[in-house]
Amino acid sequence: MTQKKAVILLSGGLDSATTAAIAKAQGFALYGISFRYGQRHAVELQAASRVAQHLGFEEHKTAEIDLRLFGGSALTDNIAVPKSNSVEEMGKGIPVTYVPARNTIFLSFALAWAEVLGANDIFIGVNAVDYSGYPDCRPEYIAAYEAMANLATASAVEKGIRLQIHTPLIHLTKAQIITEGTRLGVDYRLTISCYDPTEDGKACGHCDSCLLRRKGFADAHITDVTAYQS
Amino acid sequence: MTQKKAVILLSGGLDSATTAAIAKAQGFALYGISFRYGQRHAVELQAASRVAQHLGFEEHKTAEIDLRLFGGSALTDNIAVPKSNSVEEMGKGIPVTYVPARNTIFLSFALAWAEVLGANDIFIGVNAVDYSGYPDCRPEYIAAYEAMANLATASAVEKGIRLQIHTPLIHLTKAQIITEGTRLGVDYRLTISCYDPTEDGKACGHCDSCLLRRKGFADAHITDVTAYQS
Repeated sequence: MTQKKAVILLSGGLDSATTAAIAKAQGFALYGISFRYGQRHAVELQAASRVAQHLGFEEHKTAEIDLRLFGGSALTDNIAVPKSNSVEEMGKGIPVTYVPARNTIFLSFALAWAEVLGANDIFIGVNAVDYSGYPDCRPEYIAAYEAMANLATASAVEKGIRLQIHTPLIHLTKAQIITEGTRLGVDYRLTISCYDPTEDGKACGHCDSCLLRRKGFADAHITDVTAYQS
Repeated sequence: MTQKKAVILLSGGLDSATTAAIAKAQGFALYGISFRYGQRHAVELQAASRVAQHLGFEEHKTAEIDLRLFGGSALTDNIAVPKSNSVEEMGKGIPVTYVPARNTIFLSFALAWAEVLGANDIFIGVNAVDYSGYPDCRPEYIAAYEAMANLATASAVEKGIRLQIHTPLIHLTKAQIITEGTRLGVDYRLTISCYDPTEDGKACGHCDSCLLRRKGFADAHITDVTAYQS
């Protein structure tokens, strides 16, 4: 029997690594896609490559899309990434690290590749619990994207293939994600979550993403092996 | 009063030029986006620049996205573009010139830019009459995309802004499009429709796109000023 193929959005972070491990455990052959989108830190692409190798991906592609063309985000522009000392101190609402239409763009590339591969499954590690500030991480957004995708492609229209967008982490807390990934053997030392890492890949320890990661390991009672600057 | 902004998907072809002219006639300030997506002919990007200048666009950006990464189309790969002698002889079904998820990717970039600009309107020159073979040119696809887009962005979620995707050509024949564009003063000599033009921008005259263009001018009883090879 041929293994079913899945396209995995792979950022190099903790969430997408766990998502990939879940897809693998479900029996999918993994095809990873990462993006060089003008993010300030390229170390996350190195992390994505390490994760792809670690989890035995069949293929891993990096698409070049320069979102600095439009601006409007702390992740692509010269805007300071907010830092604080605890999850409780973190800003509310949609953060400045929001990149306009990012998941919509990422999923569109995944959709194109899925069609060429003959894959009917896309996995994305979005989460509506910790990152509720991002509109394109919510279940209603993902459902609408899936409905659109099933009208968009030749394979959907001609062959009646139904594409499914899997979001296995969407209702999990960070601690639950880390517990599940650890159970599946994910080596989190290979991943990076920080929005503002040093060039050699050390995490800042105080951006929203670092704070949520730290709290996740603490809540899961699993040792956090991440190299933090402070 | 400040003019409302619209993002226009601008390919350099006849349809997108007409779409832009319609948006302008409706009073929008025009922000054009074109894509270097690995298409075999760069002459269409030159045509897009000419059209942007001709119609007085406020801004015109070209996004670099290499869809050859995935393959799967005669427009990006080394697959022969089909040629025939009349619209009646053209192939049926989804053509090999279909690029997987192309409009989904293009609209996603337009959505990102619209959000940064504060524009609530995107114009795309899709057509469900002549190009009924393309799944991502159908009204039901566009409606699903719009529904998804209105869940995707911070401006939709935080400010309650409703994004609209305008498809003024969707139910028009090529002859009706040409008649409307001519009425609005579009100079079609600046545009290029051919899937397989020469390097200096001459149209082949026999690909599906050339055949539909030729028939459109003939049916509209408007002189076709296009430079065809044969």
